[in-house]
Amino acid sequence: MKNFNYNIPTKVLFGKGKVKEVGKEAKKYGDKVLLVYGKGSVKKSGLFDIVVNSLKDAGIYIYELPNIDPNPRIDSVYQGAELCRKVGINLIIAMGGGSVIDCSKAIAAQANYCGDVWQDLYVEQKLDTLTSALPIASILTLAATGSEMNGNSVISNMHTNQKLSIGHDILRPVFSILDPEYTFTVNKYHTAAGIVDILSHLFEQYFTPDHEGYLQNRMMEAMMKTVIEYGPIAYNELDNYEARANLMWTSSLALNGMVSYGKVETDWATHGMEHELSAFYDITHGVGLGILTPYWMKYVLSEDNVHRFVEYGRNVWKIHGHDNMEIANKAIDKTREFFNSLNIPQTLREVGIDDSKLEKMAEQATIFKYLAKVYIKP
Amino acid sequence: MKNFNYNIPTKVLFGKGKVKEVGKEAKKYGDKVLLVYGKGSVKKSGLFDIVVNSLKDAGIYIYELPNIDPNPRIDSVYQGAELCRKVGINLIIAMGGGSVIDCSKAIAAQANYCGDVWQDLYVEQKLDTLTSALPIASILTLAATGSEMNGNSVISNMHTNQKLSIGHDILRPVFSILDPEYTFTVNKYHTAAGIVDILSHLFEQYFTPDHEGYLQNRMMEAMMKTVIEYGPIAYNELDNYEARANLMWTSSLALNGMVSYGKVETDWATHGMEHELSAFYDITHGVGLGILTPYWMKYVLSEDNVHRFVEYGRNVWKIHGHDNMEIANKAIDKTREFFNSLNIPQTLREVGIDDSKLEKMAEQATIFKYLAKVYIKP
Repeated sequence: MKNFNYNIPTKVLFGKGKVKEVGKEAKKYGDKVLLVYGKGSVKKSGLFDIVVNSLKDAGIYIYELPNIDPNPRIDSVYQGAELCRKVGINLIIAMGGGSVIDCSKAIAAQANYCGDVWQDLYVEQKLDTLTSALPIASILTLAATGSEMNGNSVISNMHTNQKLSIGHDILRPVFSILDPEYTFTVNKYHTAAGIVDILSHLFEQYFTPDHEGYLQNRMMEAMMKTVIEYGPIAYNELDNYEARANLMWTSSLALNGMVSYGKVETDWATHGMEHELSAFYDITHGVGLGILTPYWMKYVLSEDNVHRFVEYGRNVWKIHGHDNMEIANKAIDKTREFFNSLNIPQTLREVGIDDSKLEKMAEQATIFKYLAKVYIKP
Repeated sequence: MKNFNYNIPTKVLFGKGKVKEVGKEAKKYGDKVLLVYGKGSVKKSGLFDIVVNSLKDAGIYIYELPNIDPNPRIDSVYQGAELCRKVGINLIIAMGGGSVIDCSKAIAAQANYCGDVWQDLYVEQKLDTLTSALPIASILTLAATGSEMNGNSVISNMHTNQKLSIGHDILRPVFSILDPEYTFTVNKYHTAAGIVDILSHLFEQYFTPDHEGYLQNRMMEAMMKTVIEYGPIAYNELDNYEARANLMWTSSLALNGMVSYGKVETDWATHGMEHELSAFYDITHGVGLGILTPYWMKYVLSEDNVHRFVEYGRNVWKIHGHDNMEIANKAIDKTREFFNSLNIPQTLREVGIDDSKLEKMAEQATIFKYLAKVYIKP
């Protein structure tokens, strides 16, 4: 096992009705809160009113930054940071999925920063220059990215056509509220994409050639089994609480660092490639991952790493047999069948991507590969 | 899944050479440290000198509280708390196993407390009265209790013949240093006892009649598999780093709350009974657990909970078959065989316990059962 520093300080309030505790929790940080959210689905679901009432009951002044994009822009970051400085915000609360949380982290970093976080942190990766940030919290409405417990943030810059990520412990939320009921309204398409995203986060940390990390690999198999058990249930019955709860909690634990601490290395190649598909064609992240993953598995499978595919096949899919390569290939087929059962397309052609930009995307992905190294390991 | 509040803020510095970072970490809390340790094994192993040098290099003043008993006494707690108040200690560092850490937590609680923590917290369980405590840290030398990441503390009062426990989030260590190399000197007997203790912590949280907690149960199976894989390796080769590392990290994750958050209930009956064996006959905790566990399993096994024993048999021991009770019984036999392989006795007679005090112990254990409810759930 490799040396590591474990640091996951985020408090999680999990379950039905927990949203009502936001005022009490937020008050510990001061009485001026910036509420960051997206295009208004939190208003439709009624979440917004519950949050605002709880904050007001606690005597908290509320400022708002709405309309965050699915791929959050650096312009929103500057706008939010300026507001924080102007009114003296004490806590930023992100309401939504990974995009809103990622954007809030960037605002928290920029608010106290002498310089430009885009250039210094996202482009040049000078992470040591970030020594303080405003506290951020989250109220999660989508199980997928794990941003609610980690210090990762992905931001897009439309002026330079770049989508870059950082990871820094100082940006881990101080608390996150996870009520699975607020994911009932996520439709089948995005539920499927979220399921693939969670599995992909586990695959990226699991499929490595090293023989160490026994405990970590067994824990990841436990999480994969949970997603495979409850993914189809949530997909077919969107308001199944137990299924939504297991997916939501798995998505947080899968990418808060716990399962990669102590591992020799992690991969993130599929995420690197998918980032380019999303950047060039604006397809849904989880769908892109679902298309790429089985091909990636077949492509990298070799004698050096077949033991990990055999463990995956035996422990997750209960595949028996003696021929390692046969077990490995069956496990990959099972993975594709699972994605098929969620109506994830099998080819790039199906989502309108031809080979005209492959070379350009490959080039960009190779640059991203460097950044991917820091994606999960701040 | 049940509602829960997840809160595991302890930083963990894990791996070879991490002890040298203690001064830098400790300095964040101030410049006066109380070092708490046991009967001197930390001096023999060389750990003491490394810690003292690191603290001195960081400009920290060191005060000492040595000679903590394996079952830490309330008298040591009062003595430590008085010292903390007198010299204005900023951080308590526990060097050793669970006993030393548990004692340090009690000192941390008493140091700032207006009243008697023994009476108010351990006896009367008025946990709400504890609103502040000195920060504590730990440097672990034994993989077993999990005290290095949780807020639990078990203290003995020899004046009243009581051994009582509390659990409070405020007593979670601010940081813990885990270097598996410092567990190489743990002998075969105590290594075996530690292995049984870790497994028992998992069993207490796993064997419940409810059908919920899918993710949590799969994660516990992952940890059980790790202990079953690496326990015998560490037992037969005391300085095997990978085995010691997997056991050490598993012992921390098994009892920091993570695997029980969201479960409907946990058990702790075997721990309740074993506490009485230890109290009346002073036998090693892990050995007592090893004797009792297979009998407890056979005793409680019923149609209501057989599904959990079947999962245990299938997922942990790879037992195949269709008859649930048969799989369950085979799994229990496998557990006993595993303990046998570590030379854990099979009967109370073998450790000098006859039936003369059974009734008295049963009575005391029933009182403990109430307290056990709070043991892991602050």
